[in-house]
Amino acid sequence: MTDVSGLSIAILGGTGDQGKGLARRFALAGHRVLIGSRSAQRARDAAASIGAGAAGGENAAVAAEADVVIVAVPYEGHRALLESLRAELAGKIVVDCVNPLGFDKQGAYALPVAEGSAAQQAAAVLPDSTVVAAFHHVSAVLLMDPAVDKVDLDVLVLGDDREATDIVQALAEAVPGVRGVYGGRLRNAQQIEAFTANLISINRRYKAHAGLRITDI
Amino acid sequence: MTDVSGLSIAILGGTGDQGKGLARRFALAGHRVLIGSRSAQRARDAAASIGAGAAGGENAAVAAEADVVIVAVPYEGHRALLESLRAELAGKIVVDCVNPLGFDKQGAYALPVAEGSAAQQAAAVLPDSTVVAAFHHVSAVLLMDPAVDKVDLDVLVLGDDREATDIVQALAEAVPGVRGVYGGRLRNAQQIEAFTANLISINRRYKAHAGLRITDI
Repeated sequence: MTDVSGLSIAILGGTGDQGKGLARRFALAGHRVLIGSRSAQRARDAAASIGAGAAGGENAAVAAEADVVIVAVPYEGHRALLESLRAELAGKIVVDCVNPLGFDKQGAYALPVAEGSAAQQAAAVLPDSTVVAAFHHVSAVLLMDPAVDKVDLDVLVLGDDREATDIVQALAEAVPGVRGVYGGRLRNAQQIEAFTANLISINRRYKAHAGLRITDI
Repeated sequence: MTDVSGLSIAILGGTGDQGKGLARRFALAGHRVLIGSRSAQRARDAAASIGAGAAGGENAAVAAEADVVIVAVPYEGHRALLESLRAELAGKIVVDCVNPLGFDKQGAYALPVAEGSAAQQAAAVLPDSTVVAAFHHVSAVLLMDPAVDKVDLDVLVLGDDREATDIVQALAEAVPGVRGVYGGRLRNAQQIEAFTANLISINRRYKAHAGLRITDI
């Protein structure tokens, strides 16, 4: 397993549930964590609520500082945010965990994305970054719950650069219980993002915080 | 769990690997199994190779006779076959397990489907049938292997009719080790079909016959 112990991690949209949950687990694992937000004050408040040495700042500042940048913003603001950070994100691993979903009375469903997926949109907008897709299915509730010491989940990691996917697989294992599993190339990210809609349906039917495990590996 | 013990099952495209594997497991579980093919002789040969009382015939004949009909044909012939069997399939549960995939040097990828997914295409072509999507991720190799007495897999079952999805979940459990799990409405079938491309990538990377399990249910 790749050694990622010294890597600092910025989380754009780190004041949202999923971003904050990931920030918390990375900080607990000993990583330097930088929470990003449009508002530096909200980012600092979120970092303080997590503790464990997490810091906060504006998205551009934390993107420029960190080794690895996780994108956990709502899909609506995804493209515009990444376009505005092209310089700060150049040369870095950018981990996209955005799920383009719509919701109606029947539940969640996948939104069409012109580039194929949010991850491919990120890759198109950030030609000088190495985009990896991961962390789509983590339950924010489980990540934030102090009573949950292990999360029963395989994080699927997709990308076209082996070194980058190896790093993100190792980072995923900062969350106790989680296994980082290579899940294919970026062109197969759409169904991983959209699968979150199925997990939401499963959660409704079974009153659960469902995740997935890959068998036979 | 719904009692499905008396149901007969036809498998269109039952001479292919996936169809034959499913036929074998259903026959071993005591179901009357009818293998369908364009050629009645090839269907009878496949049935004989399975044993356990399986029978074979032309697609139209087995579709008309069985209680539940599984569609396991290549995607290329999917729409035309279903259009030709509209009368035979009327009033029945039709279980679509077709994965619209393309292959190139980089592996498998999802093909676009005008209706959204193969399952939604089936529903559009068969307005008088109840279409359910399931069995996309079963490994034909494991289904056919006499040494495999348990398959480590959750079969995701998608559909808009609760009675039908309950029946197909119960049928899935005819395969030892398998759990039938409700996976959402038919409009969320595309990503389940396309996820097969990711499993193929995982199989390549890890030299496995990967499946998936849903956690926390």
